[in-house]
Amino acid sequence: MTSLNEALAQTAHDVERALDDLLPIPEGAEARVVEAMRYAVLGGGKRMRAFMVMETAALFGVDRRCSARVAASIEMLHAYSLVHDDLPAMDDDDMRRGKPSTHKAFDEATAILAGDALLTRAFEVLAEPDTHSNPDARCELVLALGKASGAHGMVGGQMIDIASEGKTLTADEIGRLQALKTGRLIQYSAEAGAILGRANQMQRHLLVCYGRDVGAAFQIADDILDVEGSAEDVGKATGKDAAAGKATLVSILGLERAKLQADMLAKQAAEHLDSFGDKAAHLRALAALVVARKN
Amino acid sequence: MTSLNEALAQTAHDVERALDDLLPIPEGAEARVVEAMRYAVLGGGKRMRAFMVMETAALFGVDRRCSARVAASIEMLHAYSLVHDDLPAMDDDDMRRGKPSTHKAFDEATAILAGDALLTRAFEVLAEPDTHSNPDARCELVLALGKASGAHGMVGGQMIDIASEGKTLTADEIGRLQALKTGRLIQYSAEAGAILGRANQMQRHLLVCYGRDVGAAFQIADDILDVEGSAEDVGKATGKDAAAGKATLVSILGLERAKLQADMLAKQAAEHLDSFGDKAAHLRALAALVVARKN
Repeated sequence: MTSLNEALAQTAHDVERALDDLLPIPEGAEARVVEAMRYAVLGGGKRMRAFMVMETAALFGVDRRCSARVAASIEMLHAYSLVHDDLPAMDDDDMRRGKPSTHKAFDEATAILAGDALLTRAFEVLAEPDTHSNPDARCELVLALGKASGAHGMVGGQMIDIASEGKTLTADEIGRLQALKTGRLIQYSAEAGAILGRANQMQRHLLVCYGRDVGAAFQIADDILDVEGSAEDVGKATGKDAAAGKATLVSILGLERAKLQADMLAKQAAEHLDSFGDKAAHLRALAALVVARKN
Repeated sequence: MTSLNEALAQTAHDVERALDDLLPIPEGAEARVVEAMRYAVLGGGKRMRAFMVMETAALFGVDRRCSARVAASIEMLHAYSLVHDDLPAMDDDDMRRGKPSTHKAFDEATAILAGDALLTRAFEVLAEPDTHSNPDARCELVLALGKASGAHGMVGGQMIDIASEGKTLTADEIGRLQALKTGRLIQYSAEAGAILGRANQMQRHLLVCYGRDVGAAFQIADDILDVEGSAEDVGKATGKDAAAGKATLVSILGLERAKLQADMLAKQAAEHLDSFGDKAAHLRALAALVVARKN
């Protein structure tokens, strides 16, 4: 059994190659938007979502060439959301993953288009026959990604976040906001492996629960890092939530209780995988890493 | 046989109802983004793309409830592109379809999110089982839409347009720009009917050619309207291309030759439909209308 770090590095390598293959640069002046897409998605990030896809797919013996495509698709979707979130009209962030955000490295119009094209390409890749021999599986992947990332998922969460500025949210409201804004896509990353593997209903349910709890733990850990971490370690500005007067579970529960809650969620996530035995060791270790990470 | 105008009105009615059904307003604060989506896509536009889907699908006897879903999906895709194109960082248009553009009626952040969510929902609808009983057909719809609208299609065309500002393009370069920026989605609208109808290769090819020529004729007609039309008739600012120093086929060929070219393309579009006989009468009439329209 390889270590978690080795497995993470292998996935990062595989998904990077898949992304490179899936985003060839065209001849004409439209090359600029593909260069911006590649800038936004290549060579950065922890690839946690990609790892969840590939490890959950591996539980069912799915060919890594197929799961790497789905992992690349999710990383494109995630990258689009970051490119648009960083825009001046949204969170107005100049830095991302330790380098200038896409609208700074290119320009706003190109960043908007690059986000749009990453989102489009994410769906296209899922529907391509190379992703799965069964078209039902490919449609399910498209459907579940749409649900996770649209107005009733990630985009909805971002809308709530913007609409809530200056308002006092309860812990429940913050939990719902974060479940939509970041949780659903992480949950989808685990569900995608079940779809690729044609898992039975119970297996799929367990992986969805795992993804949901990892997502919730991840978000609390992120909020803790925003309070405790340095911009250098985290790769983006920290202390932003407090400066913006934005309530998080950390500001409501306090640091210690938030840490306890994240640990509880990580433990609960791992327990959903009991029936998968040793094959799920990396996924269990990932749940622990999510709350222990420093960036 | 109903008249073209009656058929257009019937399609506009059917697609409006489908859009209304497909975009229910949720309970939470994320309702705002769905309201913006509905503002952008409901109650406006000529529904030309929707009409092409439903009429090409009707050639093969496709259930109108299915083709209306695909028509609604394309209208969402089209609406997202208008919402993002109108943003200050892009074309900076305050009016669209005779009313304030989405970022004016709401705000920039909401408009960016509404565009993202319309794009996402467009793909989701295509993949839903209600769209077609055959998952292969649903995957083909997703794939062809992705190709038509992504970095190698519509978004690529928009990128070329932005990158070409201040440059002198040849007629060929303008043709390619417009084929990507507006042509591919119109072409897809005709192809979608063939996919829904499980058309054979030759039928699908003929409908793609029809869509391509209608798209090219439509764009030239649009450029002519920008020169000849009034803002009141057209529902958005006119004279913009000239003011921006933007070359179009009209500025290169002159008005008369541009009109001749549009007429030639419309005639050619109709001829691709010869083998479909009387069933294609509306589609032929549409090609003629596209170059005769005043808005």
